[in-house]
Amino acid sequence: MYDGTNYAGWQVQPTQITVQSSLEQAVEKLCGINTRVFGSGRTDAGVHAKGQVFHVDIPTKFNESKFVQGINSYLASDIRVCRAVIVKDDFDARFSARRKEYRYFISTADVADPEKRLYRYHLGADVDLEAMRKSASLLIGEHDFVSFAANRNQPEKTTVRTIYSLDVSKRGTDVCLKVSGNGFLYKMVRSLAGHLVEVGQGKRNLRDTKEILSAKKRTRLVVTAPAQGLFLWKVSY
Amino acid sequence: MYDGTNYAGWQVQPTQITVQSSLEQAVEKLCGINTRVFGSGRTDAGVHAKGQVFHVDIPTKFNESKFVQGINSYLASDIRVCRAVIVKDDFDARFSARRKEYRYFISTADVADPEKRLYRYHLGADVDLEAMRKSASLLIGEHDFVSFAANRNQPEKTTVRTIYSLDVSKRGTDVCLKVSGNGFLYKMVRSLAGHLVEVGQGKRNLRDTKEILSAKKRTRLVVTAPAQGLFLWKVSY
Repeated sequence: MYDGTNYAGWQVQPTQITVQSSLEQAVEKLCGINTRVFGSGRTDAGVHAKGQVFHVDIPTKFNESKFVQGINSYLASDIRVCRAVIVKDDFDARFSARRKEYRYFISTADVADPEKRLYRYHLGADVDLEAMRKSASLLIGEHDFVSFAANRNQPEKTTVRTIYSLDVSKRGTDVCLKVSGNGFLYKMVRSLAGHLVEVGQGKRNLRDTKEILSAKKRTRLVVTAPAQGLFLWKVSY
Repeated sequence: MYDGTNYAGWQVQPTQITVQSSLEQAVEKLCGINTRVFGSGRTDAGVHAKGQVFHVDIPTKFNESKFVQGINSYLASDIRVCRAVIVKDDFDARFSARRKEYRYFISTADVADPEKRLYRYHLGADVDLEAMRKSASLLIGEHDFVSFAANRNQPEKTTVRTIYSLDVSKRGTDVCLKVSGNGFLYKMVRSLAGHLVEVGQGKRNLRDTKEILSAKKRTRLVVTAPAQGLFLWKVSY
């Protein structure tokens, strides 16, 4: 688990503190080896995680609960390792992942709760959940999601992904988007969230969703929702 | 509402940033007057509030929702004014208060959730709720609570207070103590929480609760629970 607020994302950067570099330093302090930590995928600056998974090669003597206690003692309190498991040599946190779930939280409350300010996109107005659900249902399944991705320096081999489910729910004044799929493109979840919020506000409609998806081109019609509402929730193997 | 993490408590201090001083600065920017803001009571450094109430005298032209929007625009996002109401001249946020509710949150989870790290006392072990409830029931009613108070420079006229209710509940891995009363002594809620946690851990028992209360003297038998688990929840008039 991590609170991404104070990190320049997951991936090691030359001059900034990241979640990956923090974990590598903690592993080095605990195990005395300087080695790479491999995550299931990157998260951007300000994005949080409840269920990020990483693998790391460390020397044989290994006690699972002592590893958890030990590594947490070397981490700042905004990163916590919840569990450690010995895996087979062919396990890879990224390539063995079969399913990922993200959750995106939007606050519709008039006034943003200070306790949630780093963990919600504060919209401050109500949204039409039914309209959002209708647009969401169009996005489920196997599609080329390039219209909902941002360009990254390295182009993807394919921009086709499968979304297994995309639920829109509300609890109190919080709207939650739960999306699970076999993988996600760069900034895809925040782009889906940004679009669905605009649908919920009546700025876009079901026809727009259809047209944007079938255009297979990212344009300004899709906005990217802010990082702080996003949590990498669960990775399944 | 405020997240007390970054403030030296409610009350104005000569050299530190407090919630009260931040509100006074925001009122000055919004209304152009340098005036005192009066809270229902102080909260200590690191203590949070969902329902703190303050009163302030400002010039007559006053639109309630514009005041809320305006003052929030001059406050950091960890303090939010939720509502503003025009009151009679004899209303006083402190002296008109009839009932206050505090909530104290304890996490029993093995690993502390980073998102909650500033809003929970992380105990990291289970507690005996029934034992806590039995001790809590002894504390309800009108008592001299001096054994559960810390000394402040100014002595209180009386250390007798009435606790109307003191509930111990659990939701997931969070234990919540809800206490309401006609007023609370300095550090009284954190002392009650510290004692009840020790009862829940089996370090103290019902007889200890009885003896501590009837001793009418603060001793080391009572520990003060950490500030970050405490919320001033509601003030009733």
